[in-house]
Amino acid sequence: MQLIRVNMTDQSIHVEDMPSAYEGLGGRGLTSVMIDAEVPPRCDPLGPENKLILAPGLLSGTPLVNTGRISIGAKSPLTGGIKESNSGGKIATSLAKLGIAAVVVEGQAPAGALWRLVIDDQGKAALQQASDDKGARTYALCAKLLEQFGPKYTIACIGPAGELQLGSASIQTTDVDDRPCRAAARGGLGAVMGAKGLKAVVVATQGKASDTIADPEGFKEAAKAIAQGLQKNPFTGQVLPNLGTAGILGGVNAMGAFPSYNATKGVFDGWEKISGEALAERLQQRGGKTKHMGCSQCIIHCSNEYVDDKGKYVTSSLEYETLWSMGGMIGVDDLDAIARLDFLCDDIGLDTMNTGVALAVAMDAGHKPFGDGAAAIAMVEEVARGTDFGRILGSGPVAVGKHFNHHRVPAVKGQGIAAYDPRAMQGLGVTYATSTMGADHTAGNLLGLYMAGALDPLAAEGQADASRGAQVTMAALDCIGLCILAGGAVASSKGREAMLRLLGAKFGREMAPDALTEMGVRILKAEKNFNTRAGLSATDDRLPRFFHEEPLPPHNKTFLVSDDDLDKVYNFQ
Amino acid sequence: MQLIRVNMTDQSIHVEDMPSAYEGLGGRGLTSVMIDAEVPPRCDPLGPENKLILAPGLLSGTPLVNTGRISIGAKSPLTGGIKESNSGGKIATSLAKLGIAAVVVEGQAPAGALWRLVIDDQGKAALQQASDDKGARTYALCAKLLEQFGPKYTIACIGPAGELQLGSASIQTTDVDDRPCRAAARGGLGAVMGAKGLKAVVVATQGKASDTIADPEGFKEAAKAIAQGLQKNPFTGQVLPNLGTAGILGGVNAMGAFPSYNATKGVFDGWEKISGEALAERLQQRGGKTKHMGCSQCIIHCSNEYVDDKGKYVTSSLEYETLWSMGGMIGVDDLDAIARLDFLCDDIGLDTMNTGVALAVAMDAGHKPFGDGAAAIAMVEEVARGTDFGRILGSGPVAVGKHFNHHRVPAVKGQGIAAYDPRAMQGLGVTYATSTMGADHTAGNLLGLYMAGALDPLAAEGQADASRGAQVTMAALDCIGLCILAGGAVASSKGREAMLRLLGAKFGREMAPDALTEMGVRILKAEKNFNTRAGLSATDDRLPRFFHEEPLPPHNKTFLVSDDDLDKVYNFQ
Repeated sequence: MQLIRVNMTDQSIHVEDMPSAYEGLGGRGLTSVMIDAEVPPRCDPLGPENKLILAPGLLSGTPLVNTGRISIGAKSPLTGGIKESNSGGKIATSLAKLGIAAVVVEGQAPAGALWRLVIDDQGKAALQQASDDKGARTYALCAKLLEQFGPKYTIACIGPAGELQLGSASIQTTDVDDRPCRAAARGGLGAVMGAKGLKAVVVATQGKASDTIADPEGFKEAAKAIAQGLQKNPFTGQVLPNLGTAGILGGVNAMGAFPSYNATKGVFDGWEKISGEALAERLQQRGGKTKHMGCSQCIIHCSNEYVDDKGKYVTSSLEYETLWSMGGMIGVDDLDAIARLDFLCDDIGLDTMNTGVALAVAMDAGHKPFGDGAAAIAMVEEVARGTDFGRILGSGPVAVGKHFNHHRVPAVKGQGIAAYDPRAMQGLGVTYATSTMGADHTAGNLLGLYMAGALDPLAAEGQADASRGAQVTMAALDCIGLCILAGGAVASSKGREAMLRLLGAKFGREMAPDALTEMGVRILKAEKNFNTRAGLSATDDRLPRFFHEEPLPPHNKTFLVSDDDLDKVYNFQ
Repeated sequence: MQLIRVNMTDQSIHVEDMPSAYEGLGGRGLTSVMIDAEVPPRCDPLGPENKLILAPGLLSGTPLVNTGRISIGAKSPLTGGIKESNSGGKIATSLAKLGIAAVVVEGQAPAGALWRLVIDDQGKAALQQASDDKGARTYALCAKLLEQFGPKYTIACIGPAGELQLGSASIQTTDVDDRPCRAAARGGLGAVMGAKGLKAVVVATQGKASDTIADPEGFKEAAKAIAQGLQKNPFTGQVLPNLGTAGILGGVNAMGAFPSYNATKGVFDGWEKISGEALAERLQQRGGKTKHMGCSQCIIHCSNEYVDDKGKYVTSSLEYETLWSMGGMIGVDDLDAIARLDFLCDDIGLDTMNTGVALAVAMDAGHKPFGDGAAAIAMVEEVARGTDFGRILGSGPVAVGKHFNHHRVPAVKGQGIAAYDPRAMQGLGVTYATSTMGADHTAGNLLGLYMAGALDPLAAEGQADASRGAQVTMAALDCIGLCILAGGAVASSKGREAMLRLLGAKFGREMAPDALTEMGVRILKAEKNFNTRAGLSATDDRLPRFFHEEPLPPHNKTFLVSDDDLDKVYNFQ
């Protein structure tokens, strides 16, 4: 496997074999360890010293299912710490099949210059002038580029928000239907790409790099066990294909953990209108798609295609987190408005979560009323136009809170929370507070434990240990490139063994029983090391005060986990 | 001496005798030690847990000259750390003569409510509704209040910027001519006052609290020695009365240390048009005032009164730092424009330095051309109107840099630098980087050392030690309430002895020879302790990278002091 280093300062490109220091790493493992090794921790995230690294997972491009995940890493302009943001689509599989372990974007083009990086089906990379694409939204850009390059290409790109270098700017990747609706959304990595002067990465999907699996037969067999596990599991085999990630909305709301009206309530009045069931029903009526495939090698098909009342495409995929951030969090119970906001964010290149939380803070501060979907749409459009308010909104909830002097800003390390309130799911609060990534549910989600009744979500006890375990496992999955939704496949001891056999077959050596834990801990330690050197400290590993002070209805609990417990989460053995 | 505690949450007022823990402290000593003891370091600076403390110096109200300084302290919304901001006028002397050691404003009025605090000539404090004053600018407000309360009152108040709770909002105090042209400008303390719902503090000037000096005769004698020293010293006896603080402009510019065009040059092309000499000449021609008295008990008379070409009052006092921030820093060489900007800042309640640096960053980012005084005036007017851009500008240079994605932001801990470039006066860089206050020249100014030829301003050697010494001395002076310009009076061993005799006479006990150093160190330790607990760390004690990377003409030096040296500045014995 090779690294492609692209220097934006002088437009030079260097290809190198994977250095031994990074061997055995892929995805988030590779981006985080490289950033810790190569990026000056105190550098300006939007300056030439930062590096934007796109790395397919360790097992992306192999026959293992649901490994179409790409990790994109950099120092984050939103959190000031290290960041890995994860997306699906086709690009991870495509890069892996070209034998590319990572594309490392370094330096900085002169202000105003705009480039695209093209990697052809021989894995050869070249920079092309892209000044014509200045200001382009992602759907129009991808349609134009795929017209130009042909259908055997996939794209990662930024929209106007990334060019404006805003803290909520995403990097959008094209899905199996060539729409830029998959997002490496979190942490403002689109701003880093924009600061480098890189508008798009265009990658051939037809790579045929020689197989790098040491024991292909052993690999196939273990991969089959994982795939069967996913199909038998009721969540990945039934709920997700039929209802998508929206299938959990009713459950989280019933647990009183659905942060609504800027996290002032744990239950959303209009939840039934935006639930997974309501969404599926509407899509069936209108001829939209449930059980849609979004990413290469996916066998879960959690994606959907939302259409308007004339059956015309609006957006894909309408996910649980967006139904929350553009729904309950801002008091909107209108699926059409939420779908429009989802599309707009993808098209402008914005994190739907950070943007929804920013809208919620603005509404809570009295700028617009909760529930006003049209106002929300108008505000998001302002981001694309780059108005003064649009730039503030696109900079995320902390910037909006400052602008309106509003104290209730549900964010950690500058990043908005996700669709699980830490007062009704205390362990999520531990993850939000302590994750190296800022408030990030994917970094250590305990929803499965709560749903299974294995842990009381309302008590402080046990949450720190559970969060630590989930954070370690997730780091390992992000290294492997396995989709978070397929993570259940390695939760059982049988699944874990199958994953160890897969890695053993890939590398041609036996894996130690704790190899996954070791992998996860190594990644978290590298990330923590970077953050500490960047100046983050224990005081950054805290939830905003209002979570400690304002009880959340209906349980009327505050966040109860002690600072001491939070400080122990990263004490690895 | 007494503390007046004003609780804005329930409008209750409690008077208490000075607690023994705070005995022997005044001014910054009292505000900083109290904040370290009483304010939760991680609290929201604009929330109810912060405290705004107004404390006259230890020797304010005594017969010692130039002690009319008030320290205003709080956790700063600009730096996220502790803050003391210092102002002149009449209020320090007035409070001290009423026997009031400090006014401590606690809690928070309900959003939208506005109050004024009135302290009558018996020292009795009462809150009055002030909703009529909502949005009032400071000149109109003070004229109205002094009309209502009569001439024997003095005022500290906020303007629209403070009500908007902006990071550059000042607290303005009335001078001896009853104009609100003296400012506790730095650190956004006006925003803290605004967040508390307090528009103004109106204080009777005619207090007759019983003399608290143990040995009045000994005090008088030592005070005389200080006064004579100030009159004999050529800087305080000649330069300041004739040219004001602007008298140093030519010298700093000649040393290549006058940060111009957003700190891209160390010499300003139009310096001769805005120098102290040019200013004095214009005021003489037009009938303005040089050698004007701004503060109670002042014998230096560094103030001036700027008038327009019809002899009409424009502003007072036009200081060196504003001639820089609204002049060279933004490329403006028109005294009339600078004077107008100075007035506007006082009237709106804005730090002229933080606002000038914010304008410079906006201009450097291409928003408006350098040198466009009319554009600068229009931008500052936007702050008062509370437009989206106005709020960003009023939030200071870091907010403006973020808004325009501009990397060259001359600020430390969020606060803009002052009129001495750290590349041409390396020790000022040490002070900017390490001061508990953020970039603040008054916290440890080494200009005198450089002017005297006692230290090479361009070399790294000796700067850290010199800055430490200056920071300790200044903390002690800020505790005593002595004006920084009178600080030279205690620089000599003779002056230092006189100050120890003064303190001894005040307290009725002999002072140890190192009592001033002890006092300064105690204050700095309390401030550092607060900042550390608030989450600030060594990475915050650094200059922005561009000072390390971009050489400053004409000397073409970068900032050379090592991180190790910076980290040792607060290692007190």
